[in-house]
Amino acid sequence: MTQNRQWVITANPQGLVKESDFEWRQTPVPSPGENQVLVRNIYLSLDPANRVWMNGAETYMPALHLNQVMWGGTLGVVEESRHSGFQPGDLVQGRGGWQDYALSDGSDLSKLPAQRQVPLTAFFGLFGHIGLTAYFGLLDIGKPKPGDTLVVSAAAGAVGSLTGQIGKIKDCRVVGLAGSEEKCRWITEELGFDAAINYKTESVRDALQHHCPKGIDIYFDNVGGRILEIALGLINVHARIPVCGAISQYNATAPVPGPANLSVLITKRARMEGFVVVDYLHRSREAIPDLSKWYAEGRLRYRVDVVKGLENTPSAINKLFDGSNQGKLIVQISGEP
Amino acid sequence: MTQNRQWVITANPQGLVKESDFEWRQTPVPSPGENQVLVRNIYLSLDPANRVWMNGAETYMPALHLNQVMWGGTLGVVEESRHSGFQPGDLVQGRGGWQDYALSDGSDLSKLPAQRQVPLTAFFGLFGHIGLTAYFGLLDIGKPKPGDTLVVSAAAGAVGSLTGQIGKIKDCRVVGLAGSEEKCRWITEELGFDAAINYKTESVRDALQHHCPKGIDIYFDNVGGRILEIALGLINVHARIPVCGAISQYNATAPVPGPANLSVLITKRARMEGFVVVDYLHRSREAIPDLSKWYAEGRLRYRVDVVKGLENTPSAINKLFDGSNQGKLIVQISGEP
Repeated sequence: MTQNRQWVITANPQGLVKESDFEWRQTPVPSPGENQVLVRNIYLSLDPANRVWMNGAETYMPALHLNQVMWGGTLGVVEESRHSGFQPGDLVQGRGGWQDYALSDGSDLSKLPAQRQVPLTAFFGLFGHIGLTAYFGLLDIGKPKPGDTLVVSAAAGAVGSLTGQIGKIKDCRVVGLAGSEEKCRWITEELGFDAAINYKTESVRDALQHHCPKGIDIYFDNVGGRILEIALGLINVHARIPVCGAISQYNATAPVPGPANLSVLITKRARMEGFVVVDYLHRSREAIPDLSKWYAEGRLRYRVDVVKGLENTPSAINKLFDGSNQGKLIVQISGEP
Repeated sequence: MTQNRQWVITANPQGLVKESDFEWRQTPVPSPGENQVLVRNIYLSLDPANRVWMNGAETYMPALHLNQVMWGGTLGVVEESRHSGFQPGDLVQGRGGWQDYALSDGSDLSKLPAQRQVPLTAFFGLFGHIGLTAYFGLLDIGKPKPGDTLVVSAAAGAVGSLTGQIGKIKDCRVVGLAGSEEKCRWITEELGFDAAINYKTESVRDALQHHCPKGIDIYFDNVGGRILEIALGLINVHARIPVCGAISQYNATAPVPGPANLSVLITKRARMEGFVVVDYLHRSREAIPDLSKWYAEGRLRYRVDVVKGLENTPSAINKLFDGSNQGKLIVQISGEP
């Protein structure tokens, strides 16, 4: 390939992402300068946070300006290197964006082990930012104790499914909310959640009351909105609410009111705490051995939903918001070596 | 006096408290049984939380049922004792409620020092639940660091005024919100706040932006509602929001939406944490020496707003909600010994 195909963001989406919010460009594949590497992107991670970046405001990331290649986490292979730390053929995780090839000075790259027991996609589905989000969000912010009741929203999602399983490993009662019968079966029958609630067909309040007879000690919030309000109504004294995402609001075109019962935080002496995984990347060595061990023991499972073709990326990301993805959403840009 | 005058709650108020939500009863002054004491109430504390109790739902307190004497914190003097721990004449702090006399088994009473350097009302205005709320809410939940910007709402109130002063003692930049020019002058000129904002006449957003050029590290929330939403919009990374009260909502007759920007907790990795002072009463020995020392050094000031007459209690409590109180609101029920 001599052309580098790119999705360039040209408009801040209103509501769901549209292909017309991006421009499909083809530019020559660049050559690495001194101390640079050229990476061929193999897999692109699609995450709910991408939608937040597209609004163009500063978040935990600087503002994403229009007319640049859309950001995204990638797994790739080094094609050319003028950097002493990388050799052609090295597999790397980085932030290569929505394109075939990316130049890097190496500062955003981490090398993947040459010998590995897991598929390459596991570095998105189990390790990497997804695993660290679930691990530190639950353990550092949620502080589970044996016997705690843990409720996880978007529980069949990449982060939610790992969070619930780690909750089981930590001897919590785990109740997950998901948007289809298939997802509910998967998290209970395959992943070992104690109960699942189909938030599209059941009364979430009634079902949570039923499945959480001792109240909620930890609500791991991936969605915000209505479900957050219902969960707040059922929290126990000293409950913890790690705030991981607010996916229900990411496509809102007008402000969405917050929970009307927020002051229950006072009467329940409860804590809501937001976090982003970038703050924990430097502590990945604490998490990876646990995640690897639990995976090897069969106590941690994941699944990936791989959409083929960079050209399909703008439509693929909406699978996160209509709930049609089954597992960690990934775009395959090119073949594995 | 041979009659015990009492305010008995007979209806859950809708909106502001009305005298008709209570019944004025006169019953004979009771005699203490074995291991009981009879306390004559001198001062009654009126606090925003009282309004929450009146809704009759379980909070951090059990549900307040109708047809009982309204609860309230009191300072009083032991009139008769059949309890080995108390003598007639002992000054005590307790939960004597909205009445002239209260019986107690002593478990809710703490004796005040016989020799004291401060007026009796200081045990409401400076020590007791008010001082402990400010002390632990700011220091334990807010975790101020030198140079932090601390914003306090209801800053001329009993808790808010102490919170801001403790913030100054901890070398924070302190900005207070209050509802009159007089209150704004008091907290800046007398109490040493760096800036005050009159939330009734100024644009809170513009004024906060102006007075918090480095953003907000701690927002000590006494009010909830609109001001919480504005403050959230200005928080820094790793901000802390001790949630002490939501006074703007206590008289609401319909659900009040929460802040539409609550998910800023994620991008700012911020923490909102509710607390109630009853959880800290056992740690009062940590706080009282500091509060006493700072008071003696002139670094901590307070003022009390004393309404005379138990009969005026139902109307007096609304001063907390229309902002007409100046300092800690207290009802004087009987004379000091």
